[in-house]
Amino acid sequence: MDWVTTDRISGYAGKTVELRGWVANKRSSGKIRFLLLRDGPGVIQCVILPDRVSADAFELADKVPYESAVIVRGEVREDKRSPGGFEITVSDLKLVSEAEDYPIAKKDHGVGFLMDHRHLWLRSSRQVALLRLRSALTRAARQFFDEKGFIAIEAPILTPTSCEGTTSLFQVEYFDRHAYLTQSGQLYGEAAAMALGKIYVHGPTFRAEKSKTRRHLTEFWMIEPEMAFWELPETIDLAEGLICRLVEETLRSCSQELEALERDRAALEKVTPPFPRITYSEVVDLLEDKGVPFVWGNDLGADEETVISQAFDKPVFVTHYPAVIKAFYMKRDRNDPRLALAMDLLAPEGYGEIIGGGQREDSLDELEARIAEHGLDRDPLEWYLDLRRYGSAPHAGFGLGIERTLAWIAGIHHVRETIPFPRLMDRLHP
Amino acid sequence: MDWVTTDRISGYAGKTVELRGWVANKRSSGKIRFLLLRDGPGVIQCVILPDRVSADAFELADKVPYESAVIVRGEVREDKRSPGGFEITVSDLKLVSEAEDYPIAKKDHGVGFLMDHRHLWLRSSRQVALLRLRSALTRAARQFFDEKGFIAIEAPILTPTSCEGTTSLFQVEYFDRHAYLTQSGQLYGEAAAMALGKIYVHGPTFRAEKSKTRRHLTEFWMIEPEMAFWELPETIDLAEGLICRLVEETLRSCSQELEALERDRAALEKVTPPFPRITYSEVVDLLEDKGVPFVWGNDLGADEETVISQAFDKPVFVTHYPAVIKAFYMKRDRNDPRLALAMDLLAPEGYGEIIGGGQREDSLDELEARIAEHGLDRDPLEWYLDLRRYGSAPHAGFGLGIERTLAWIAGIHHVRETIPFPRLMDRLHP
Repeated sequence: MDWVTTDRISGYAGKTVELRGWVANKRSSGKIRFLLLRDGPGVIQCVILPDRVSADAFELADKVPYESAVIVRGEVREDKRSPGGFEITVSDLKLVSEAEDYPIAKKDHGVGFLMDHRHLWLRSSRQVALLRLRSALTRAARQFFDEKGFIAIEAPILTPTSCEGTTSLFQVEYFDRHAYLTQSGQLYGEAAAMALGKIYVHGPTFRAEKSKTRRHLTEFWMIEPEMAFWELPETIDLAEGLICRLVEETLRSCSQELEALERDRAALEKVTPPFPRITYSEVVDLLEDKGVPFVWGNDLGADEETVISQAFDKPVFVTHYPAVIKAFYMKRDRNDPRLALAMDLLAPEGYGEIIGGGQREDSLDELEARIAEHGLDRDPLEWYLDLRRYGSAPHAGFGLGIERTLAWIAGIHHVRETIPFPRLMDRLHP
Repeated sequence: MDWVTTDRISGYAGKTVELRGWVANKRSSGKIRFLLLRDGPGVIQCVILPDRVSADAFELADKVPYESAVIVRGEVREDKRSPGGFEITVSDLKLVSEAEDYPIAKKDHGVGFLMDHRHLWLRSSRQVALLRLRSALTRAARQFFDEKGFIAIEAPILTPTSCEGTTSLFQVEYFDRHAYLTQSGQLYGEAAAMALGKIYVHGPTFRAEKSKTRRHLTEFWMIEPEMAFWELPETIDLAEGLICRLVEETLRSCSQELEALERDRAALEKVTPPFPRITYSEVVDLLEDKGVPFVWGNDLGADEETVISQAFDKPVFVTHYPAVIKAFYMKRDRNDPRLALAMDLLAPEGYGEIIGGGQREDSLDELEARIAEHGLDRDPLEWYLDLRRYGSAPHAGFGLGIERTLAWIAGIHHVRETIPFPRLMDRLHP
């Protein structure tokens, strides 16, 4: 007999199959027992009639605890009322392993409790939907770059120095010295772009920030493309194309997940090109119009980002930030050297920044001056300066934060549910 | 005028295009100058004739230093003698940035020197080929699992404890306590498999081993599938299918890279299913036949692996190892409890282990006993034991080491060239 998973069940209507999974729910109605079987790809209702199964199997259906592992055999029947459109008329039910009293009940638990049981919480329908959506987004993002001829690069996780500032580095004991966990693959991506043309880094990044907001994780994943001979405008186009692809792919292939998450599809359907593009200076005016006090030269905080992103029903690019609030590697605007050729993409519905990037400084002299101005140690950056000594070229790129992007697309409040095992300032377990 | 990259040049024969890249080589022949332009996707020969360009452009072609960034304009001409089959008759040459004296000359450098200049060494044709091949292999591996309905999962990098033994952990300062860099995503992958059915983890892993062999990196990448309700035999089939796909894809789409690496294609063409499958006990006999002294119960070292993998012209599965030399989570063989349901795949041509895996212990009692026997701290593993308390099911998986697999497929000696920025015991820079 074929072992079939619920995602392939429609091809087996009228046939007898075997299913393997866990008891996600159960109920009875008169002499009939219903088990909701969860097998990973989906759930299916299994109907147990006393005259169709052995007495032992019927008793098992009655008593089997939640989340026990079972093997079900039965006939696949089309039934429009069932979730998924099919159900199983059970001919045999076998216990693989009886579960102890399952700690996650149908009632509400506090987040602390759920996070302590993250290894089990992952099995709930909402968490399954989020993880499946995460996988689909990652696949779509990689495909987007693969199709355009980008080469996937792995940047090192263990680094000798910082690339985004030294205050939020995690220090590692590396034999007889110290290493630091990477904050971004960008600097290494730039080296690879000079070798390969167009590359993307997909990997984990780390920030030892003492932030307890809904947008912060200490460990998070980024996709960071970097392109030799590209400048800011075409980099913005690329970011727009990527976001449109991610949303299209979600709407096309993740309807089931969006439904489980009760996500408003209409909000996502509005995400079509072109996205509005406004400068930082225009943002200052916009904030003033909205009655938000803000001084030109300050960085946009989460509150300002929320106001801006609520002002548009599409993602919005903010460009040409004051250079002083951006990283040392940002190229200055030739037309106004106070400004950096930087861009951030703010997601709508108040989600704020999901992409940050821009054109990189390609002049050796300018970059040396920036390193000095930022008070950075130059020694560990000599190799990075080499990229400007030997065939420097205009280049640009950006970083997309997977968790923040997923939080927006899934329409959930806190990034902690967007990664299988979140790491927060006070959360390292399980 | 269109900016065209060398990978698309065949569509522009007879047309005038713009190319952007770096001067990889140059030579002159009488009044003609030849520049070899490297643009990432490939290289192309540019022919500069004195009567076709300005005097300035001709002088530039004469004097431009190696690795300078340039923009070339000219007509694409088909020429079978050229590498790639096309060359450019230059009409204009512009300097983007003049390179200082390039430190990597055509002459041989020591490995230490090249590793110190890894950010530049990446530009050499052999390193470009390796990175492109790495990207192709990663893509093929992820596609292999995606097509089969596996969900991509990111396991945490920062972990509270060990999963492969405590002697080779990197310790991280995590706010007011310690964390450790993950050695494998497997334990987390098991939790995800119980939620999602079939998953794969693709991410970096770390071992603080004081090994200076050609097979060791302190930071390396793995792809680790984990499948609920799977047992050992079908897991071996999956690993065989994966390796065949990787080799097929390499032969199909990476001919240029294999050529640059001078890889013997015939050796790869032999990699077809089925692969030989032998038990550990049969290995002991084989080693005896080969005159290699070896005692049943010892672990296979690099030397033994080399002997075994040289005995076959295909990858070979070794299964049913003594349980004492395998990790605590390996399931025992019911027919012989001295043995673990483990499997390793040894690559041919002396490359040794590229995959390790097997069936996981799914009995709570047995797993508790193993944890005690291995002297492991049980507290941080309670969550992992929960997977056996709540709906335990047979499950299995394996880990494929990207760098070792690439070293074999590319036919190169040392894994340090298989990752963009290798991390070794004495190498953390650049």
